Amino acid sequence: MSIKPILFENGILKMIDQRLLPTEEVWREYSDCPSVAEAITTMVVRGAPAIGVAAAFGAAFGASHIQEDNYADFFSEFEKACALLAATRPTAVNLFWALERMKGCAQIHRDLPLPELKARLFAEAQEIAVEDERLNRTLGANGAPLIADGARVLTHCNAGALATAGYGTALGVIRAAVEEGKELLVYADETRPFLQGSRLTAWELMRDRIPVTLICDNMAGYLMSKGEIDCVIVGADRIAANGDVANKIGTYTVAVLAREHQIPFYVAAPLSTIDLSIADGSGIPIEERSSREITHVGEQRLAPDAVAVRNPAFDVTPARLVSAIITERGVVTGDYSQGLKALAAKGA
Amino acid sequence: MSIKPILFENGILKMIDQRLLPTEEVWREYSDCPSVAEAITTMVVRGAPAIGVAAAFGAAFGASHIQEDNYADFFSEFEKACALLAATRPTAVNLFWALERMKGCAQIHRDLPLPELKARLFAEAQEIAVEDERLNRTLGANGAPLIADGARVLTHCNAGALATAGYGTALGVIRAAVEEGKELLVYADETRPFLQGSRLTAWELMRDRIPVTLICDNMAGYLMSKGEIDCVIVGADRIAANGDVANKIGTYTVAVLAREHQIPFYVAAPLSTIDLSIADGSGIPIEERSSREITHVGEQRLAPDAVAVRNPAFDVTPARLVSAIITERGVVTGDYSQGLKALAAKGA
Repeated sequence: MSIKPILFENGILKMIDQRLLPTEEVWREYSDCPSVAEAITTMVVRGAPAIGVAAAFGAAFGASHIQEDNYADFFSEFEKACALLAATRPTAVNLFWALERMKGCAQIHRDLPLPELKARLFAEAQEIAVEDERLNRTLGANGAPLIADGARVLTHCNAGALATAGYGTALGVIRAAVEEGKELLVYADETRPFLQGSRLTAWELMRDRIPVTLICDNMAGYLMSKGEIDCVIVGADRIAANGDVANKIGTYTVAVLAREHQIPFYVAAPLSTIDLSIADGSGIPIEERSSREITHVGEQRLAPDAVAVRNPAFDVTPARLVSAIITERGVVTGDYSQGLKALAAKGA
Repeated sequence: MSIKPILFENGILKMIDQRLLPTEEVWREYSDCPSVAEAITTMVVRGAPAIGVAAAFGAAFGASHIQEDNYADFFSEFEKACALLAATRPTAVNLFWALERMKGCAQIHRDLPLPELKARLFAEAQEIAVEDERLNRTLGANGAPLIADGARVLTHCNAGALATAGYGTALGVIRAAVEEGKELLVYADETRPFLQGSRLTAWELMRDRIPVTLICDNMAGYLMSKGEIDCVIVGADRIAANGDVANKIGTYTVAVLAREHQIPFYVAAPLSTIDLSIADGSGIPIEERSSREITHVGEQRLAPDAVAVRNPAFDVTPARLVSAIITERGVVTGDYSQGLKALAAKGA
């Protein structure tokens, strides 16, 4: 039973503080919009789908605190709350998708009395969370046939239960393959600087008794050259209409290495990660984060004082390096421009 | 004036403790063979040429403590001291090269009275150190024309003054280019797990006022894809007869990325790093080090307790990905099998 990092109980949002894992399991409680926004910015919660879920609850909290008594004024204030949440992190599109969905919900139910509308927004956020876990299980089942029994699977960052409402995307595919009875070995890139691989992926896989071996990001090429990796599977923060994939920094390097060694490179992501409004990866904004993430671990300094640092948090893997995109509505390969559009048209 | 990490003064070997940089500058003192061996194993001193220099002094200390009064018994004990030093680290060939040179010195001077022979061995170790810095300056001058004015140069690990008796190999080429008046920007991979890039390369370049920007190992691909890196230069721990290069883990990944982006990938190393006895990289032993280097930074745990870890300390970059090998006797390109053999035959 994989962990659920985001719980909504008795009107309180509870999130496990992912900055403190694996050494401490601390659950934080939230009941207003600005503190949820702060939790996203500071990475208490991270992972594109999980950010979307958290933002939906943040929006519902924002709505619940609005004092206006007419819909127009209410909605205007609600948009401000959503804008605060939207300003937290630029790359993962699920954030914007969730906020648009919450605004849409507020508009559809504009005729409800405001107290009922506010309750409806909490229900919508809960629905987003429930859907997310459900669709990850479908996505996992769709992707599992791509993973052979006995495979040694490399993953980068954490696209697991902790990055979603539960079960995970890339790790969801791995969980589904394991549930089918396949024996896998997962190699987890530690994923500098935030160490999502060593801190989160290793932790949640060990918790579920799925064999995992930790490596530094710069070791994947060596293992591939030795024939010790059979496929790669990662999540995504935003997928452009042509199939270019923005994901955690270092993903592009893994994709180049996979191609060099003729190893399949799979991307697992829900449809809410696909942004058909962006033609290709060059249009995806890449967040640069604080230099301190690289120069320090906790209070410990790793680099000279005042050293210049670059800290792009994401990179873009061109579609040509992607063997397949695995979604809850099916697996796309080949011509992603056609395939992703068809997938979007197919459902909902 | 670049730092010299290894000093021999009044019969004492002094080495800056590279595990504590950049936060503390602590010099350790040595006057016997086992403690020098321990310093190499625990990486007080690291970097292929610096390990060779330290081992030479360790051998001289070993000789100085031998009580035997005839040459045959002396030499037998001396070989044991050298064997202790040889067992410290398997990959860098300079270690074995320096020990062979010390043994050769003891054999050439077998007719000297033993006290004089012991003094001669200290003189030989000092000569190895002096030569190393001198040849790095020549190597640097040979390589400097490959670096264009204004170039943004990526380096991995530390092949600097700290990795040698002084001046450095890869960073020696950069220093020589800067001394010619070229304006460079060096990107330093932090180089997990030991962080030679953030702790050592950034430190020694900042000390010499050469502009340096620190990145995580997994960011080089992103910068290359953005056109922000013009060439790569690294050192080497051992170069096989065919030009395959063993160097710090992650070097191979950088080389694959450089080829993908059509960026030159240069290796700078003295002739003592070239091992013509090994046909290709598959014959180079790759050291695997303690998992703790990955799971902890100092006392701080970064990963779950008891997580499985792989920690290969080096990888092999095939010769086909190497644009040039820069040595003190010239620059080799193209057919390395011919070129390296010719270089070895040319000199000494």
